[in-house]
Amino acid sequence: MRFVVIGGDAAGMSAASRAKRNRPDLEVIVLEQSEDVSYSACGMPYNIADPDREMDDLVVRTAEAFREKQGIDLRTGYRVDTIDVGNREVSGVDFQGRAFHVPYDKLLIATGASAMPPDLPGFDLSGVFVLRSLEHGRMIRRFIKTAPVQKAIIIGMGYIALEMCESLRAREIDVVMVKPGPDLLPWMSREMSSVVRSEIEGHQVRLYPGRKIMGIEKKDDNLIVRCEDLDLEGQMVLVATGIRPNSDMAGRAGLVLGPSSEISVGRDMKTSNENIYSAGDCADAFHVVTGKKTWIPLALRANRGGWAVADNVTGKSVELEGVAGTAAFQVFDLQVARTGLGVKESEKSGFDPVEMVIKSRSRAHAHPGSSTLYVQMVGDRISGRILGAQMVGKESAAHRINALAVALHQAMTVEAFSRCDLAYAPPFGPVWDPMLTCANQLLKKLRG
Amino acid sequence: MRFVVIGGDAAGMSAASRAKRNRPDLEVIVLEQSEDVSYSACGMPYNIADPDREMDDLVVRTAEAFREKQGIDLRTGYRVDTIDVGNREVSGVDFQGRAFHVPYDKLLIATGASAMPPDLPGFDLSGVFVLRSLEHGRMIRRFIKTAPVQKAIIIGMGYIALEMCESLRAREIDVVMVKPGPDLLPWMSREMSSVVRSEIEGHQVRLYPGRKIMGIEKKDDNLIVRCEDLDLEGQMVLVATGIRPNSDMAGRAGLVLGPSSEISVGRDMKTSNENIYSAGDCADAFHVVTGKKTWIPLALRANRGGWAVADNVTGKSVELEGVAGTAAFQVFDLQVARTGLGVKESEKSGFDPVEMVIKSRSRAHAHPGSSTLYVQMVGDRISGRILGAQMVGKESAAHRINALAVALHQAMTVEAFSRCDLAYAPPFGPVWDPMLTCANQLLKKLRG
Repeated sequence: MRFVVIGGDAAGMSAASRAKRNRPDLEVIVLEQSEDVSYSACGMPYNIADPDREMDDLVVRTAEAFREKQGIDLRTGYRVDTIDVGNREVSGVDFQGRAFHVPYDKLLIATGASAMPPDLPGFDLSGVFVLRSLEHGRMIRRFIKTAPVQKAIIIGMGYIALEMCESLRAREIDVVMVKPGPDLLPWMSREMSSVVRSEIEGHQVRLYPGRKIMGIEKKDDNLIVRCEDLDLEGQMVLVATGIRPNSDMAGRAGLVLGPSSEISVGRDMKTSNENIYSAGDCADAFHVVTGKKTWIPLALRANRGGWAVADNVTGKSVELEGVAGTAAFQVFDLQVARTGLGVKESEKSGFDPVEMVIKSRSRAHAHPGSSTLYVQMVGDRISGRILGAQMVGKESAAHRINALAVALHQAMTVEAFSRCDLAYAPPFGPVWDPMLTCANQLLKKLRG
Repeated sequence: MRFVVIGGDAAGMSAASRAKRNRPDLEVIVLEQSEDVSYSACGMPYNIADPDREMDDLVVRTAEAFREKQGIDLRTGYRVDTIDVGNREVSGVDFQGRAFHVPYDKLLIATGASAMPPDLPGFDLSGVFVLRSLEHGRMIRRFIKTAPVQKAIIIGMGYIALEMCESLRAREIDVVMVKPGPDLLPWMSREMSSVVRSEIEGHQVRLYPGRKIMGIEKKDDNLIVRCEDLDLEGQMVLVATGIRPNSDMAGRAGLVLGPSSEISVGRDMKTSNENIYSAGDCADAFHVVTGKKTWIPLALRANRGGWAVADNVTGKSVELEGVAGTAAFQVFDLQVARTGLGVKESEKSGFDPVEMVIKSRSRAHAHPGSSTLYVQMVGDRISGRILGAQMVGKESAAHRINALAVALHQAMTVEAFSRCDLAYAPPFGPVWDPMLTCANQLLKKLRG
């Protein structure tokens, strides 16, 4: 049997490796359009922050290792452009411009997602970057090294934008950030997003939310980002305005897509075609809180999805649970973390959300080094269930959030969570962990 | 109605405060034998570490505040020695040596636990300390300040012993530790306890486990701890050989006690007497993993137990869930954390435990500042349930453990936990959180 994988990043290579481990006799072919496979994409901003690192130290495993140690037929520079579902064959063009055709028994589409720059003039100018692939990362490193970049304009204010903001500041580049939407981190409670905003501004970064962007222009050696009522001038522009699933080919092959064009898959990662699976940033998932389909492209799910596909292709029968949308990022000295639904998302999903935001301490009363920790929790008035949580603080937020992620997987009520026996020692928190304090207070509000 | 509380520490003052908040007309009398109420006992080692702090900065709320702001009749210097259950009256002696008698409608015994020095010669010598109350802490601070302490001998190797070891090293005092039992942290997997041992020894502390202790002697200005085949000489001895519940009075009053003399309480915190509750370090609890009674005296449970008593006394009907035994401590640069059962405890409780220990990283591949994180997880071969977990590492262990504590409360299987959507970002862990990696590997072993 032949298992063909389109895309050699997290989901694709996880699937290929595990399939080969599960069934060494399986023929596994991976078709990857770039030369890079299996790297830590999320590490790119941190890599760029350090002038002494190489982009390639993010490579977890080389193409050679996959070929030689794991017996995977990994073909880099192979761009697939057509899936013929009738004849079970993919075709495309290789790095030498030659057409290829590869028949499959089972196929995995792990084509990921692409940056989504707005369709406006000037976004193709030299000095304008996106950061999605290792090659993008190399281009940015090279540009910073060779061009005299004093100031960068970041368009967007999501995870990547914020991580790159910190990264560029670490390289002593001035940064301004701009976006059309009115709020920094719109999914976050306002009190907490203003803490994040202060942290960013405290590092000499100006934020311009709510600015309609008209285009980018070249002016002498500089670039100008033209907004409706503002011109931002610098030597470099990073466009981090979100991503879209690479699903055009899947759509042309007649596979069912979701509302953001993500490829629709079942709990077994199978698409609407019996022989085709999809995993990674191009595929959707069930949300553990809503039970409905969602598209939250994150690394853990990509890896886990890849494994599940491998198991299903090799004869085990695996169904994945949903995602909780658990995520964390660092911005300067702050950790920001979330899991589950915010208030607006809860309302949209038909819940009756009640929100509690508390300000607590990261360590015990009078313990040195303690800092403020904000904890937000959303509960459903009808069922009493926890719907989601967010945290912001200098320490522990990114790890604390996992206790609440587990709670979401178990559909725990706020009350049940409030009864949990969590760890206490003065260097790590108050006797009542801030999550418990938040749950206790939310419980009162839910009952009140 | 009159609610009388014996003991003004965590459980007692939590109960008194909440009872008064619930029912302002309730008469609440607290009888505390010392002069100190409501302080962070767990903070004492960290306080002693710093020559510039005062022991009293651990006081969370003063006796005056309880009296004046909360209307609690708080009597310090009142030592209760008898409970007359027939007449519903407690009696004892106050700070001026006068006998007192206080009738009650409902009574809370929150007498805590005491240090348990061995019954051997010399443990009453000057320079020999235990650390259990704020007054003990003051005595140690005073001693270190005035006596030329170059070297301290700590008898015991539990949480307090290890925290005080770090504390005294921070004061540039040489430390040796000795105990009769053969293992440092006997509940911990051997691989992980050896990591803790190396950390301690790396801070110039010598450990002598497995040494029978004969007594302490005075020799000129020094103290000598005499062991069967070893003499340890220093200027100060700290005895941290465990604690025992202060339950003699409860026992004399005919209340049912457990195997370690802890006061036996139901889920409503009621003792075997209809009008008497117990909470805090003197009372037992149900264990969420075994469902059986256990005695794990920790601060969060004391506070929570106090609240539950207050609710029950004031007419709400509250039953507490069990404890998971979740605990964390810091020893030099290491965090040590645990929840649930170890392998031996699991066997004793009738489970068929399977253990997995993995060595992972605290941050992502190639991310700067990453350190080794050890994760141990125990699963039950029959039910597939998680029975317990332990972690050791320079960062995140104390916060990560809570995700597993929540899992224990939910009686989650290793498989269910392995499916959880935990946070990932390079500064905080690998894509597969080390807990997930451990669960994945334990799952294989459970199935194998």
